Parts: sequence; structure tokens; C-alpha cells
Amino acid sequence: MPQTSLMMTLQFSSSGTPVNVQAKHFLIPGLGRYDHKYSPKLPSKFPKTSIFNSHQIPNPILHQPPVNQSVAAIVFGDGSESRLYPLTKRRSEGAIPIASNYRLIDAVVSNCINSNINKIYALTQFNSTSLNSHLSRAYSVASLGKEGFVEVIAAYQSPEDQGWFQGTADAIRRCLWVLEEYPVAEFLVLPGHHLYKMDYQRVIESHRNRKSDITIVASNGITKRDQDPGVGVLKINTENQVMQYSLKSNKEPVNYAVAETLTRCNDSSYSYIPSMGIYLINRATMVNLLNNHFPKAMDFGTEVIRGALSLGMKVEAYLFEGYWEDMRSIEAFYQANMECIKKLNTGYNFCDRDSPVYTIPRNLPPTVVNDAMITDSVIGDGCILNRCKIKSTVVGMRTKIRDGAIIEDSVIMGSDVYQIEDGRESSIKSTSVPIGIGENTEIRKAIVDKNARIGKNVKIINKDNVEEGDREANGYIISGRIMVVLRSAEIPDNSIL
Amino acid sequence: MPQTSLMMTLQFSSSGTPVNVQAKHFLIPGLGRYDHKYSPKLPSKFPKTSIFNSHQIPNPILHQPPVNQSVAAIVFGDGSESRLYPLTKRRSEGAIPIASNYRLIDAVVSNCINSNINKIYALTQFNSTSLNSHLSRAYSVASLGKEGFVEVIAAYQSPEDQGWFQGTADAIRRCLWVLEEYPVAEFLVLPGHHLYKMDYQRVIESHRNRKSDITIVASNGITKRDQDPGVGVLKINTENQVMQYSLKSNKEPVNYAVAETLTRCNDSSYSYIPSMGIYLINRATMVNLLNNHFPKAMDFGTEVIRGALSLGMKVEAYLFEGYWEDMRSIEAFYQANMECIKKLNTGYNFCDRDSPVYTIPRNLPPTVVNDAMITDSVIGDGCILNRCKIKSTVVGMRTKIRDGAIIEDSVIMGSDVYQIEDGRESSIKSTSVPIGIGENTEIRKAIVDKNARIGKNVKIINKDNVEEGDREANGYIISGRIMVVLRSAEIPDNSIL
Amino acid sequence: MPQTSLMMTLQFSSSGTPVNVQAKHFLIPGLGRYDHKYSPKLPSKFPKTSIFNSHQIPNPILHQPPVNQSVAAIVFGDGSESRLYPLTKRRSEGAIPIASNYRLIDAVVSNCINSNINKIYALTQFNSTSLNSHLSRAYSVASLGKEGFVEVIAAYQSPEDQGWFQGTADAIRRCLWVLEEYPVAEFLVLPGHHLYKMDYQRVIESHRNRKSDITIVASNGITKRDQDPGVGVLKINTENQVMQYSLKSNKEPVNYAVAETLTRCNDSSYSYIPSMGIYLINRATMVNLLNNHFPKAMDFGTEVIRGALSLGMKVEAYLFEGYWEDMRSIEAFYQANMECIKKLNTGYNFCDRDSPVYTIPRNLPPTVVNDAMITDSVIGDGCILNRCKIKSTVVGMRTKIRDGAIIEDSVIMGSDVYQIEDGRESSIKSTSVPIGIGENTEIRKAIVDKNARIGKNVKIINKDNVEEGDREANGYIISGRIMVVLRSAEIPDNSIL
Amino acid sequence: MPQTSLMMTLQFSSSGTPVNVQAKHFLIPGLGRYDHKYSPKLPSKFPKTSIFNSHQIPNPILHQPPVNQSVAAIVFGDGSESRLYPLTKRRSEGAIPIASNYRLIDAVVSNCINSNINKIYALTQFNSTSLNSHLSRAYSVASLGKEGFVEVIAAYQSPEDQGWFQGTADAIRRCLWVLEEYPVAEFLVLPGHHLYKMDYQRVIESHRNRKSDITIVASNGITKRDQDPGVGVLKINTENQVMQYSLKSNKEPVNYAVAETLTRCNDSSYSYIPSMGIYLINRATMVNLLNNHFPKAMDFGTEVIRGALSLGMKVEAYLFEGYWEDMRSIEAFYQANMECIKKLNTGYNFCDRDSPVYTIPRNLPPTVVNDAMITDSVIGDGCILNRCKIKSTVVGMRTKIRDGAIIEDSVIMGSDVYQIEDGRESSIKSTSVPIGIGENTEIRKAIVDKNARIGKNVKIINKDNVEEGDREANGYIISGRIMVVLRSAEIPDNSIL
Repeated sequence: MPQTSLMMTLQFSSSGTPVNVQAKHFLIPGLGRYDHKYSPKLPSKFPKTSIFNSHQIPNPILHQPPVNQSVAAIVFGDGSESRLYPLTKRRSEGAIPIASNYRLIDAVVSNCINSNINKIYALTQFNSTSLNSHLSRAYSVASLGKEGFVEVIAAYQSPEDQGWFQGTADAIRRCLWVLEEYPVAEFLVLPGHHLYKMDYQRVIESHRNRKSDITIVASNGITKRDQDPGVGVLKINTENQVMQYSLKSNKEPVNYAVAETLTRCNDSSYSYIPSMGIYLINRATMVNLLNNHFPKAMDFGTEVIRGALSLGMKVEAYLFEGYWEDMRSIEAFYQANMECIKKLNTGYNFCDRDSPVYTIPRNLPPTVVNDAMITDSVIGDGCILNRCKIKSTVVGMRTKIRDGAIIEDSVIMGSDVYQIEDGRESSIKSTSVPIGIGENTEIRKAIVDKNARIGKNVKIINKDNVEEGDREANGYIISGRIMVVLRSAEIPDNSIL
Repeated sequence: MPQTSLMMTLQFSSSGTPVNVQAKHFLIPGLGRYDHKYSPKLPSKFPKTSIFNSHQIPNPILHQPPVNQSVAAIVFGDGSESRLYPLTKRRSEGAIPIASNYRLIDAVVSNCINSNINKIYALTQFNSTSLNSHLSRAYSVASLGKEGFVEVIAAYQSPEDQGWFQGTADAIRRCLWVLEEYPVAEFLVLPGHHLYKMDYQRVIESHRNRKSDITIVASNGITKRDQDPGVGVLKINTENQVMQYSLKSNKEPVNYAVAETLTRCNDSSYSYIPSMGIYLINRATMVNLLNNHFPKAMDFGTEVIRGALSLGMKVEAYLFEGYWEDMRSIEAFYQANMECIKKLNTGYNFCDRDSPVYTIPRNLPPTVVNDAMITDSVIGDGCILNRCKIKSTVVGMRTKIRDGAIIEDSVIMGSDVYQIEDGRESSIKSTSVPIGIGENTEIRKAIVDKNARIGKNVKIINKDNVEEGDREANGYIISGRIMVVLRSAEIPDNSIL
Repeated sequence: MPQTSLMMTLQFSSSGTPVNVQAKHFLIPGLGRYDHKYSPKLPSKFPKTSIFNSHQIPNPILHQPPVNQSVAAIVFGDGSESRLYPLTKRRSEGAIPIASNYRLIDAVVSNCINSNINKIYALTQFNSTSLNSHLSRAYSVASLGKEGFVEVIAAYQSPEDQGWFQGTADAIRRCLWVLEEYPVAEFLVLPGHHLYKMDYQRVIESHRNRKSDITIVASNGITKRDQDPGVGVLKINTENQVMQYSLKSNKEPVNYAVAETLTRCNDSSYSYIPSMGIYLINRATMVNLLNNHFPKAMDFGTEVIRGALSLGMKVEAYLFEGYWEDMRSIEAFYQANMECIKKLNTGYNFCDRDSPVYTIPRNLPPTVVNDAMITDSVIGDGCILNRCKIKSTVVGMRTKIRDGAIIEDSVIMGSDVYQIEDGRESSIKSTSVPIGIGENTEIRKAIVDKNARIGKNVKIINKDNVEEGDREANGYIISGRIMVVLRSAEIPDNSIL
Repeated sequence: MPQTSLMMTLQFSSSGTPVNVQAKHFLIPGLGRYDHKYSPKLPSKFPKTSIFNSHQIPNPILHQPPVNQSVAAIVFGDGSESRLYPLTKRRSEGAIPIASNYRLIDAVVSNCINSNINKIYALTQFNSTSLNSHLSRAYSVASLGKEGFVEVIAAYQSPEDQGWFQGTADAIRRCLWVLEEYPVAEFLVLPGHHLYKMDYQRVIESHRNRKSDITIVASNGITKRDQDPGVGVLKINTENQVMQYSLKSNKEPVNYAVAETLTRCNDSSYSYIPSMGIYLINRATMVNLLNNHFPKAMDFGTEVIRGALSLGMKVEAYLFEGYWEDMRSIEAFYQANMECIKKLNTGYNFCDRDSPVYTIPRNLPPTVVNDAMITDSVIGDGCILNRCKIKSTVVGMRTKIRDGAIIEDSVIMGSDVYQIEDGRESSIKSTSVPIGIGENTEIRKAIVDKNARIGKNVKIINKDNVEEGDREANGYIISGRIMVVLRSAEIPDNSIL
């Protein structure tokens, strides 16, 4: 019933052609699948004379304000729900559990806290319930010190606008009245579901020293993403000035490749690096771009940033060398988990004392181990591990593993509650499979989502070696040969998957 | 003003006729204007034989569970935005400031806390930013004791459903997966913007003693609402059993009046009392009604409750005698404020030690008074009152009143911030009117919303004695002869309104 | 070791003889060693006519007040420092870590919370810094719901009294002005370092139904303590009325035995059961006893309770059947830890969902296991376990166990901090042993206190099979054949203990 | 009984003579009365060769560490109880209410927070209950941001030391094991009951730039204290190097005056300014001085600082120009309150947005005013003001002023609770005077402590114009012609004082 009702007719001023856009969620180019159905033509008619650079206006506030007073972070809690489906069936990407004790968004919020940025707005819309709940419990108003906060702004209807956020630019524009509450100097726009450690103060310093209007953080490091579809790619000159912002589309890979080749031939002094979707932008510039220059822009990267370039604004790239994972697929998510159990960690370090990762504080009993051989694994709080073998596995909070189970190369997300296994419930639900991993069950290369009920003598081993498979009705899907058991799914005794 | 930009085509299965419904906000019949454009025909085909009464099923959980474990409250943070416009321009009804220090929703949440109900879900959708922020700061997870919480569930999109909540029943249905997290015995459905003090434990006791499926709280007290359009009216027999649920529509007043007259003639043993929109309903009954019996019902009162009656369920009324204000108009809101400054308070008591009203804790400096005559007024925290006269007025937090001002019979909501009045800002905005009430300004019978800037020598006195007037462009409207100055509005010096 | 540097001359009025008493800590008879040097003669001259029973006075407050409003708990955070020395070298008994994630006092405070008693005063004096810190972080004012709190009252000097608390009765007397702040009906006096699960509401019901002045909880269960020196023993009749309160002294075991035998011969209707040191006492009775009847009493059990009996007050016993451990020795503490790792737990259950144990919320990374065989053990949060074998061991938070280590039948308390093992510190302290358990080290039947630094190839095995031994200068002591490594002690490489 | 027991024999090594010292409270010279009974002879025999300057050791940590990581504040919550008696009868100086909504210690803790110092240790011992409670509620662990805290360290007994803190130096020494938990670079020692606004970062910058061992903050401003008895006076050269630390004793005013005169004659390049008792001292220096050089020093200023000078350490003065009030008397406290109600505030500004004053968050109803004329006053939260006149008065939280009352030039501290004035209590206590100010009562130039009960037709006007008077039995004292009504005192109807 409401499904079809959401097709909205949106008039994009510069094209004159109505386009249908699904107002589903935030699309952050550079982060994965790009499923907008239209390719916005850049409004080239904007006069070059309307050059705008906020640094040319004497701004007394900008005289070296402390970072925690002068920069507000805008975190997008949702990415695309489709890339990590079915992990996003009941939650947004930012709320996906990772590394036993954390949620994806903790990485970005912790970056902010460790960079001394304590005014954080989290904009959410898609499956946001679990994310909102996590953020308000983990980062209560009080926990961020003087005047600090993580303010969750859920999509809302108002007399002026009764639709959902229509994209990242639209979301920021509609929240400007809140975002402008504090007299910050810059906004830091952040995707909320990426995994990396960055000191944003370095970005801010570079931005201020170079008196840029906009600074885009680009990945120059070990992580290669520039051939991925959907990634925004920056063309930068030798001084890291951004000349062009292109989108590597999976729909039109050719055009981009051609353009790239051509440019490279002409001038070897340019290089192309993938944007990380992180933007530092002066407050006045933000307001001006969203309200005056591009009042109908919906996407921040493809429309506002490109527009700023077309206006001749000073857009610079900040090159980041470290580990960066944008969680573009189930496999990427799986690999990110596998990284954190390696002894020589080259990925994201959850145990770093100097830049700790924050999350919701817990009050769980210690993990009880009856007889386990555990190799190269991490074990969350409050697990119950009976006689079992665990190897190369991430075991989440409150996981219960029963006698004889063998688990390898897997991500077990654990459980939200302890299930009581006594007479009270058994009388009612005596036939149902209890939460956890059953006796003599074997799991290999799988992701088992929260509260799953895996029976006895089950084998989750991708027996037919399927590459991709949708068995959602049976409680699991297969993605990149990885078995993914759904949240709260029940896998009956003796199943062999 | 609200526009109809999101007209959605909704197919209602039982009628076969497409109807246009505005998916704007929760409509809680019994609380005010009923502006659904369709009158749902009750599905009379439901067999009377399918009687469902959860008490007939032996339920071991129901053996006198403690209230704080067994009842979860579902609070609707939004009402109708139009009744209290323009106070709802930037906020939902629940977030409107009242009595200097509070927000409307504090009354209902405090009722819950004082009734020992500490699992509270607040469902929000319309202009919900300020409400979400208030709730998460005022009632942090920690502040409600063991396993207590106020969980804000903002409307969200999911793979299954990408629309907004389509009404109260739809909102509850879509959130059932969260609401069912704890094994509560009953749900208590509450409008979030009413003003009254009730011990919900009395309602729960009555419900359990009488083994009802649903208990509806009805106002039998000093407050008369049964002639108001939009109020749900219960026909009850001498044992307080609900026989019928009608809606007093402003569109079709005749039908109802006829029905009423007829019934009264026939049988004097029935009476008609207005519903307060408060429902206590067994958990299993709730799930069954929403998912099985009426899976497409959108509104809780008109569709689900009527449906339950048609199924022959046991629906009882609990009669409440006390003060009750449903904030059906600007004038009602104004009167509710005026009640709380009377010496002999017959309205809502904000200073009651036995049932205290909770809100966001504050850390403001004391109110500074330079030379004020204050009569029959309440003064919020952190005000600055220069030489002025204040009579019969509610003065909100951080209000600044300058020399020579005279304020009578008014509600001044105060300010969110202190404005610095020194050289720093004056250089930029030297011409603008500062926040607060200017020198020698006179205000009578007005509501001044937050952060308003009232200049010098202004008179806000409704000089033309207008009954209703829309001067929103000038920063105010007139409603029931009450002047309402908008949030952040600026009234220039020497204006006479 | 504790010295007698603060020998004070205390004059006890009824005896006329000066006695030396060590004002070291609270002595709670019934809980262990009784080291007062005098045996108070009961003031038998108190007239029987001054019978006092608060229930005879009509008290409108007592009309079934809710427990969380009407009972305040008084928890003694300190016990005797000598019984559990050296665990009490830097902390009071209540602050000793237990079961990986908890502190001893969590058990009693959790009992209060689970019994819906949320006004908790913790009186502390001896080595109280860590206890105060733990309590204020674990049970912040906010976390106990409406009007709930854990208020730490540290011993203090005042113009009227500049000494330390001279015993449990003195401590309560001096704090009465705080304790009386809320109009509670009864006080519940609790030792803070015992391990048991009790629903205090049962005690309160019994107390109120029987209209007692004082109810003493006595252990009638699996735990046998009545032959222990220092335990207070109640002589009760068949209706559980307390006839006599005796103290089983290690100095004079004979007298007691004789008395017991005699009484038993005379009348088989009396029985003798050990007091648990838990007293429920009416508020007015408490004030009257401490201020009027026994204004110089120092100890609550031996002086005030005995005094109340001599006054003819109604003193009843409440018999408790469950597990109870009063931590009377290092061995008892060790056994209590061993209980909690058994599969069939007959001791204290830290993982009970129905009566959870609360503590300070943590935010630690998951435990990292590189290659461990773990049997019948519990593992705290944030450990790092390299290639090692762990059997029948409690492993505390942040424990680091290095390659080749073998740990059996031990309690490893873990660490307060993560030690960085990189160039920064190593340059300075390259020779020192790092925190944790070193390579190829073997530990059997030991308690390793927090932050201990155990070197490589160490054997902590009690090689000479010593029963008791004081090697504090070497970083450990031996108590009941259990090796106890001190907090922050450093055991050099290759040591064999 | 215990009174005499506290006289302890303390052996001071350098004198060889036993001295009796009362271990009552911290004495912070420079802050008021100096009532130690001995005058420590400076250990002039310390060799000049043992020069110690921590800056000569290359310290990699000191390379510009952020202030909030590298400086820990040590706040002394108690001063002298006698100077502000009877306000200190039930509380320490730091817990005295000031300016309606605050406690004295809030000023210093807020200075720390506003200076970005968030590791704060509060050492308390004297009447510390209310201070501990205030600090743990106002500054919960969470409220100070990442790794920030206000840790209350109450005096405690330990096996090594069973006495109270014997002075400021002794207190720090005994807490060093806690204070050293974090690797800070400097300690900032602060008296907790002074009123001033200072950016400690300026002090830290000066200290680091000048590579000092110790920096002492001295008052060079509008506040004159150098003639006050008990004030520590620094002799500094033209480069602000401290040459000498003397104590202006009320016992021996002559010696000091002579010394001063002599020095001034000899060399005009020195000046003498009063120390504010604020010390910034390098961590290693602190440990070295307390443990190695002066292991028996009890007082920080007179013994440790003087000792450091004698060792030839680099001790510098930081001159502070602003308002500073050390609360040396009731009159000073009264004047500090009067300052904060002046329109042109030259004292301490409690309403400063740039350096806000933090305190315990409150949740009180707004102040209800029935008919009041209020001039030049501040009104706390939640007062009830009936028909009354208030002039030049500080009215504290929850103050109730009844009809006809006149209050001028006074400090009314308010009440901790609302008293219920209905049938319930009146039946029991019908004769007692209710909390607050009674009908037709007149109060002039008075301090009315919390929860006082002032009857009807009372005049508190110092009718006999007494300068000093002790009427504590009648519920008040007179100090400097200021009437001080004690906490919870009851002044009967018609009294004329």
C-alpha cells in the first residue's frame, strides 16, 4: 500500500525535466552503490563572477578558536541499506555490531571525541530505531564534557516539508536551523559507517592554514577504492587543489574511464584519488551553497560539491594514508571483522589506548568458559562457552555456544538478552530452538546475526559452495560465499546449509 | 502553513474506494480536531464468535507482576500541529514550553514515573527534533532506575515500509518488534500533550480486577469536553462497560446527536462520557488486533477500539474525575498557563511534592531582579528582570525584561540562550532588536514564544481587538483575542499591535 | 602490617573501668574475628518498665508504605582489614574485586536494588578511597530512579566530634542527622562485604507483620558458621523470638559452649543460630536506642542489640536458608571465587537474570585470545590471552597472559590500566617486569592481586607447601596454603615461590 | 570521651621536640587564621647543592601536552571551620551555599573546567559529608568528558596510617598513590573555598615557559590582603622570582613587620604580595619534596614551599589582578554575596556566559510570586514569595516568604526540601514554626542558614546593635554586626533579636 506512494515527483530546476527519485536513504557517493536514477547535469550556467570565499570576509570568530568550540560534526547514520543487506534489515548501517562489543558508528563518533570535536549531530532516517537508541545510550548528553553532545536528528515532518530527507544535501538543509544553534566556524560532514582512525584536527589545521572553502578528505593509502563503482573520484593538482569531482558509476563506467584517460594523457601533473565522503566546510559557505546557490540540490557530493567547484570556490583535498574501510559489501564487512582478530593488526585497532573506541557502557557478568580451545579470536562480554572449539572468530556479547560446537572463520554477533533455560519458558516453547549455537553444530565462514537460534547438529558450511544465494525464507542468505544467518532466525536441528 | 504536498493514495481494503489521507501526524480522537477525510466503515462482518479475551488463557506472567515490570507506556509525542499553530511551527505539541520550566510532555511522563511505570516508548514523527532532544536529555536511560527507560522511536523507513506512520494504530503496529522486547503484560497508550495528574496504577488495578481486554480512561470530572468536535465519546452502561465508541465530528454533528438522543430516550441506564484517549490493553490483545484482526487499521481509536467492540471484546471505562486539559486550542493552552499562577490552584499543580513533575535538569544562575513589582506570577530560572511590572504572567527561563516594561496576563516563554550584549555582536547586528522585552514595552494577554525579540516602546495589546488574525509575516498571529508572537520573531521598536 | 598507633582510651560508662579499644574499623560481630579486647557487661540495671515498642504508637506513616520509600539501607563498607589482609592493604573489604568484573560490595547493593530499596547510605572509614570511588561511579545518583541514591558517608571530623567512627553504633549515631533526612519507617543495617542473595522485602514483611522492634537475619541454611570464633549467635524460641545474643569468642570458647550445653539441656525448645549481622530496625527505635538508652555504645550488635533485649524490646529472628559467605578469611574468599566457576553453581550466582548483580559500567575492548585452552573458568572483559592454559581460574578485567603460561585453581584480579608495550615506556623502564603474567610462568592455587607484574618462567606453586607465610617484602604472603601476590607487586623472572 | 583522645604526639624530626598538634582540618596559610600551635623552624641545614629542577631532565611527555591530559588539580574542600562558624557547623567551607544556587567550591571547580583541566581530586576531611554529596552529584564521572572526573578523596585510615590528614602536605603525601594514577606533568593545588575567576591555562603557560619548579599565584589586584593575619606573603624580585615566603601571623605581627621594613629599606627592587594559596608544581618535584626532602612536613605552604626555596628550587610568582575573596570571615562572606546582586558587578560574576559556573543540576518548579516588590536582589529556583518586600537580598532555593515580610540587605539560604503544609503534619507538629520566613517578619542585615524556621512578627534587626555575640542556644550568633541564624534553627513568633 504505501510502497508505491513514495514515488515523488521532484522538479530539478536546472534540467527542466521531472525525475523520479526514491527518497529512501542518504546516498553518500564514494561509499558504494550509486542508485540514483539520474545523473545530474552540472549547472554550468552559474556565473564565475559570483566567487565566494568566506575567508575574504573578515571573520572575528575565526581567530584560532578551539576545535571543540568551533567545529560541529554532521554524521550520517545511514548509508545504503542494500549493500549490507540482510544486516540492515532491522537496523541502519551505523548500528551494525562489529568486533564483539561495538557498533559501526562508534568508530566515527570516537574519532570525533578523540579529535576533541564534541558537538556531534547524527542525522538518521533509515531503520534508525536501533541507531538512535544506541547513540542516546552510548553518548549521553553528559558524557561529552562541557557543551558537548551527540544530538540525534531523526527525519521529521514539518509544516513546510512533509517528506523524508531526499538526500544528504536536503537533510543538512532542512536541519540547518538546528545545526546553526552554536556559532561554529566549520561543519565536518561524515559518513557514519566507515572504519578508520583519523585525527580530524589535522584536517582542520590544513583547512584553516590554506584558507579553503571546502576540504575533502581523500584516501591515498593502502586502501584502493578508485575502481569501485559508486566511488567519487577527485582530480587534484600537485598542490592538492581539487579540479574535478567525478563519480565512478557502475552504470556508465565507460565515460568516466575515457575522461580519465584523456586527462591523464594531457597532463601528468594531475592525479585521481577516491574521496572518502568527508567534507570540512565553512559555516557560511555551507549556508550559502545550500540555501542560495543550490536550494534544490539533494545530494551533497554530486550536486553541492560539484556546484562549489563550478562556482570557482577554493576546494582542497586532504590526503589520508591510513586504513579505511567503507563497508561496501558483506565481504568487506566480513574482512573488517577478520582484521581485528589478527595478531599483527593492519586494519582498525579496537584496543588502542591512545585513541580508544567508545561505545555503550555495559554491565555484564564475565564470560564463563567450561572447556574451550580458542585460537585467534576475540570474545565479547558475558558469553557462555561450553565444550567447544573457536578459531579465527569474532564472538559477540552474550553468545552462548553449547557442547561440541566448532566455529571457524566466522562472526557471531551474540544476543541482546540472556535466555532463561528453565521450566518457565520451556513449557510454552519446548519445541523451539534456544538462542545461541546448538550442540555439535559446525559453523564455517559465516556471519550469524543477533539473537539467532541455531539448533543441534547443524552444519553452516555453504555445502554447495554457492557464491550468492537468497534463502531469506529459510533464515539465511549467501553473499560472496559467506553464509549470513539473519537476526532472530531459527535454524532447526540437523540442518545442513 | 502546512501544505498538502504529500498526498498519498491509500487503498483501504474494506471499502474498495481509494481515499486521500494526509499522513501528517498522529490523530488521537478524543483529543481535538478530527481531520481525516474518511469515515471508516466498521468491518461488521467480523464474526461474533471469534471472541478473544486474553484472560481466558491462563497466563502465568499475569500473577500480580509488579507494575514497573509489567506495563509499558506508549506515548504519542505529536498531536495535531494545526490546533496550537504557531506554537507548533518548529516543534511538536509535546515540546511546547509550559509553566516556565517544563514542556507539555513532562506531565504525562511524570505521571508514568510517579505511577511506577518506567518502560516508556515515545513515538514521534511531526517536528520531532526538539521533542527527541528534550526527552533524551530529561529522561536519560539511567534516570529511570533498574531497567527503566524513555525510548524515543522516531518514524523511520525500512525495507518493508518506506512511508511515515499513517496514524496511531499504524505507528504502534510498525514498532511492535521494539515494543515487544520486554515481556510486559499490558500496554498503556497515552497522548503526550495532555495536562492532568493520574495514578495509572488505579487504572491497572481496575483493568486486572475486572479482567478486561481493554480499559479506556474517560473524563467524568470537572472538565467538560463532550460537546467538542473531534472528541471520542463512550457510551457506557451502569457497570462502566463500553457499549459504543462514537466520534463527535464537526463535519457530521447531526448523526451523532440523533443517535445520542435516541439512545437516551430508550434507556436512561446508559451514559455518554468523553474518552481521554488513554487505553490500557493486554499485550496479546494488542498484537492480535493490529496484526490479525485489523492489519490495515491506521487510527487506534476509531478503527481498532471500534473493531474490538465489534468483536465482542471486553472493553471497560475507567472514570477519571480530576482536572484534564487536552490543549485543543491556543486559548486552552493559554488558560492552562493561567491556572498554574493562581493562588488557589484548581488546575494542574506543578509544585506538588507528592507527584512531582520531572523535566530536563538545569544549571542556570539565579534570577536577577533590579526593581520589579510582581503579582500573581511564576518566574522561571535565570531571568533578568529590570525595573518592570509583571502581573498574572508566566515568565519562562532566561527571560530578559528591560526597564519600564509592563506585562500582564501573558505567557513569556523565555529564551534558549543568553545573548551577550557587548561590543562583539553589536558591531555586526547593531540595528537588530535584542532577545527579550524592550524598554517601556507593554504586553497584555499575549503568548510570546521563545527567543522573540520585542523592541522598545512596543505595545502588544491587540489594539484593534481582533478575534482571529494571521500576521505571520509580521511575526505574530491572533487567536481567540490572544496575541501570539512567534518563536524568534522580531517586533521592531515603537510597534503597536 | 597494621599497627596500634591510635590507641585511644575509651571510658565505658557502665563498667567504670577504662578499656583500650582500637578505633580501626567497623566491627560487625557475626561476621568474623572479634578483636575487641573487652567483653561488655550488659547494663542489666535498665529498668524493665521502660518498654518501648514503636508499633504501640499509632504511626500513620506505617500504613503499608512502599518499600522503596520507607526503608533506608545502611551499608558498612569496611569490615575488618586483618582477616583478608593483604587484599585490604590498599582497599576496604567491600572494594575487593571478585568474579572478574565485580567488587564485593556490589552483592549487597544489588540485593538492595533488586529488593526495591533505593535509599542506600554507605558508611566508610578504613582504606575507603577505592570503595568511595567505586560506589560513586557504579551507582551514580541518577541510576537508582526516583529519589534513589547510594550516598557515601566517609568518616569526617566535626566541631562536636573530631575522632573516627568508634564502631558501628557510633558511626550510625554520628550520621543520624543525615540518615533521618527522609522520613523512612525502618533502617536496614547491612555488612557490605558478604556474599548472598536475599530479597529484603521478605524480611520487611515479616518485620511489619509481627510488629517487631528489631528483626535480625540469621543463617539457617547450608552455611555453617556457629562454631566460628567471633560469630554472634542468637538463642531463639520456637516462634523465632530472640532471647539472647551471644558472641562466640575465640578467646573464651569455653564459656559459650557451656552456656549452650546448659540451655540445651534445660529446654529443647530453644535453638542457636548464627546472626548474619543484618538488622531491620524501626526508625524511632534506632534513634531512641542510640541517643537515649545507649548514648555511649560503640558496637551495634554486642551493645545496642543486647541492650534492646535487656530493655524487653520485641526482637525477632528472620531465618535465611540460602548460600551465605561472610569472607572471614583468605581461604573463604578463595572458595567463594571457586564457587562461581563451577558448572553447577551452589554458591553465589553472578549471572542470574532475575536478580542481576550491578557494578560500574565498563567500556572495554573484547577479550583477545590467540591460542588458549580454557577449562572451568570465567574471563573478565578486555583480557589479552596469548598461547596459554587456564583451568579453574577467575581471570579479571584487562588481564594479560603471555605465551606458555599455565594457570590453575587461581584468582587473577587483572589490571586497572592497559600497559603500553612500545618504545615510549620501554626506554625508561626497560628492565622492569610488565603488568600481567609472563612467558612460561606457572601459577597454581594463587590469588594475584591487581596490577601485579609476574615475570617470565616464574613458578607460583607454594613449592615448600607452606601453610602460612609472610613474605610481604618479596611481594606475596601465604595463607591457608594459598599464595597471595600483592597489588602491584613485582615477581622477577625465574622466581620459584 | 574521644575529645581528649585526639591529642597525638607527633615528632618533628628537625626540632627534636615533641609537639602537640590538633589534627582538625587542612590549614592553608594565606587563607586565614593560622592556628597550628607550633611555628616550624625552617630546616636551613638543607644543602644548597641538592638543586632539583625537573626541567633539566629531558621529559618527552612535557612536549606541549594538552592541558586536560597533563595537569591534575588537587582541591582542598575544607578550610578552617572556625572562621565561618556557624556556617561550618554541619558542613565544610566548600559546601557553604552562595548566590542562591551554588556552593562555594563550585567557583574553583568551574575555574578548572573552564580552564580545560578535567582531572580533579577533592581532598576532604572536616564535616565533609555535604561536600562529598554535592561534588558527586554536581560533577558526576560522566560530566567532565573524556577521562575527566572529580574524585573525592575523603580522609581514611589505612594499615600504615590510622590518623587523620595532619595538614595539606600530609594529605597530598598520603594520597600520592592515587594522585599518581595518571601520568600528568604538573599538579595544581587549590584551596576550595575561594571566590575568583582565573584561567589556569595562563598560569600553566607561564610555568612552562619559565621552566619553573613551582609557580605560586599571588594577588596583585584590587583585593588587599597583605595586612591580614595568617596570610602568606611572597617576597619577589622584579622578575617575579620568589625569594621568601613569610606568614603574617596574628600572634607575632611584630617580627614580620620588622622584617618587611628592613628589607624594603635595603632594596626597593623587591616587593611583597600576598599568596593566594594556589601552587602549580611539577609532578616529580612534588613527589621528591614530599617523600624525600620533607617526609614529615605537614603544611604545604609553610613547610614544603619554604623548604623548596631553601633547596634553591626555581619558585616563581604569577601575579593575578582580578577579584579574589578568600572568605576569611563571616563579614567577607556576607560582602561576597552582596557583590553579586549589584547591577554593576565588580565582584564575582555568577552569570557569565563565557566562564559559566557549574553546580548540581536542579529540577525545581518555577518561583511563585504572589505580590512582591523586589529590588536589587537575586532569587533562586523554586521559591514561594507571598506579599512581601525584598531589597538587596540573596534569596536561596525553595525559600518561602510569607505575607507581610520585609527583608533587606540579607542572605537567605533557602531550604533543602519543601515542607508540606497540610493536615498530615500539622496534626503532629501543630505548634512548631514552619520552614521559611513568617508573616509580618522583618529581617535586616542577616544571614539565614538553610531550613531555618522564622516565626511570625519576628524582628531580626540586631536591636541592641551588638558587634559580636554568641546566642547559639537561641539559634543565632552575631558576627561583625551581622545576624547569623543557624541551620534548622527555630525563631519563635514575636521574637525581637
